[in-house]
Amino acid sequence: MENKLDLNRLCVHTQTTKPWDLETCIKEYSKAGIQHLSIWRHLLENQNLKEVRRTLQDHQLSVTSLVRGGFFPAVSQSDRKAAIEVNKKAIDEAEAIGAPLIVLVCGADPNQSLEISRAQIADGIHELLPYAKAANVKLAIEPLHPMYAADKSAVVSLTQANDMTEQLNHPFVGIAIDVYHLWWDNQLEQEIERCGKNNSIFAFHVCDWLSPTTDMLNDRGLMGEGTIPVKQIRNWVEQSGFQGAIEVEIFSERLWKKNQTAFLNEIKEAYIQHT
Amino acid sequence: MENKLDLNRLCVHTQTTKPWDLETCIKEYSKAGIQHLSIWRHLLENQNLKEVRRTLQDHQLSVTSLVRGGFFPAVSQSDRKAAIEVNKKAIDEAEAIGAPLIVLVCGADPNQSLEISRAQIADGIHELLPYAKAANVKLAIEPLHPMYAADKSAVVSLTQANDMTEQLNHPFVGIAIDVYHLWWDNQLEQEIERCGKNNSIFAFHVCDWLSPTTDMLNDRGLMGEGTIPVKQIRNWVEQSGFQGAIEVEIFSERLWKKNQTAFLNEIKEAYIQHT
Repeated sequence: MENKLDLNRLCVHTQTTKPWDLETCIKEYSKAGIQHLSIWRHLLENQNLKEVRRTLQDHQLSVTSLVRGGFFPAVSQSDRKAAIEVNKKAIDEAEAIGAPLIVLVCGADPNQSLEISRAQIADGIHELLPYAKAANVKLAIEPLHPMYAADKSAVVSLTQANDMTEQLNHPFVGIAIDVYHLWWDNQLEQEIERCGKNNSIFAFHVCDWLSPTTDMLNDRGLMGEGTIPVKQIRNWVEQSGFQGAIEVEIFSERLWKKNQTAFLNEIKEAYIQHT
Repeated sequence: MENKLDLNRLCVHTQTTKPWDLETCIKEYSKAGIQHLSIWRHLLENQNLKEVRRTLQDHQLSVTSLVRGGFFPAVSQSDRKAAIEVNKKAIDEAEAIGAPLIVLVCGADPNQSLEISRAQIADGIHELLPYAKAANVKLAIEPLHPMYAADKSAVVSLTQANDMTEQLNHPFVGIAIDVYHLWWDNQLEQEIERCGKNNSIFAFHVCDWLSPTTDMLNDRGLMGEGTIPVKQIRNWVEQSGFQGAIEVEIFSERLWKKNQTAFLNEIKEAYIQHT
């Protein structure tokens, strides 16, 4: 039933199989016939990045994105300046391992208004863009779910992300569309179309929303387990011209407790059946 | 420092002081100089409603709203029909105790699409309106936070609630604006203005968003404890013509553990200082 061809666009985030280190992710994904991965930055700490790049090539794995940059807003200017430096380091890492894209979790500071945080996000990205272009690494604004507005992202809808990319108007800035963050929005279809017209759909992330959800961070579902119309949203994204990898990004204490090799098989099944 | 006059528009939801039964709420609110309350329906079970009404009058307490009706969507038609009957019973109760308004938590069914749930909500309210009008009880759609889209409310923005009230176009249907559910929305100011122009601002609920929020249901903050610009949103609501009660609706395991009489004093302080 499982068709190797069907997996051509499947990408797995290393955080989806959080119990595994980078070496295990690479070996196991490759063994499972997965051809793309997105790498979370903490796995690159104390690694030789040239060696990582070589290992990825040896396993015929391409890196879809480095996760994650961003976190621009802060009350103090020195904190905002420090954030720019952290993002430059992330761009260096992406360039070193051959990742064409960094996903931006834009950030928010609960001690200032959303409006100020949003302006600081736009300023931060604007400042980074020449550096990103020089490294040939694109930046994807990821609008997060409104439940993260206070502290993780002041950008909480695709409408806002589209507004911001139009304002920045640069071929190296676009958007990561994640069904978990955006599925509730009745303007989603039209905003995906708008995003596609701008050539701004840089990434597409999938998982599912469980009902009930018991934890705001780590209780996501595998596609098909929840209420998100994943196939429908994928269809909108593809109708709008997106042909890139379909990235499975799931944070789940429940699923992390499973045997991760077995879980990887479930991901492949869920990708084929429900995505 | 505390000014009795300043409390004229303060309303407390009985669920805010959940450990108290209705009789205690009435006595304690009255003793604290609070003149308005919103009553949660479960407190009316096995009560003589005429007596409740008399007790409220004796304590010079006016009921702002009965909480809550709604929950219209369901896959099966018989469940949807049952929901209408439950709502009619709520209208009967509101009429009996002298509540001019029922707050609607509109509902959602994780086993069907948001679009279908939204259509069923509009149908349900449409069906109820003659009954509500006959009882002289208004209905307020309360758009909930998008984190409740799967199972509590398919209406998750003020834009949507405005669309729905415009579509229903009836003087007995309007909107309850709750800062907790709507503060993240960058279209909030303009949608409040639109709501005011439609004479649809039927209620205004306040509390605060804690950062971090540790529970999706019962970790709300007292005004001033969190990140919501409550005063600014109140200002928008009043600029748009709203002159009604300011309803404090807080669900918090942490605050419910406090001595509730002391907590009521904190509510009064927070109302004066941060609302």
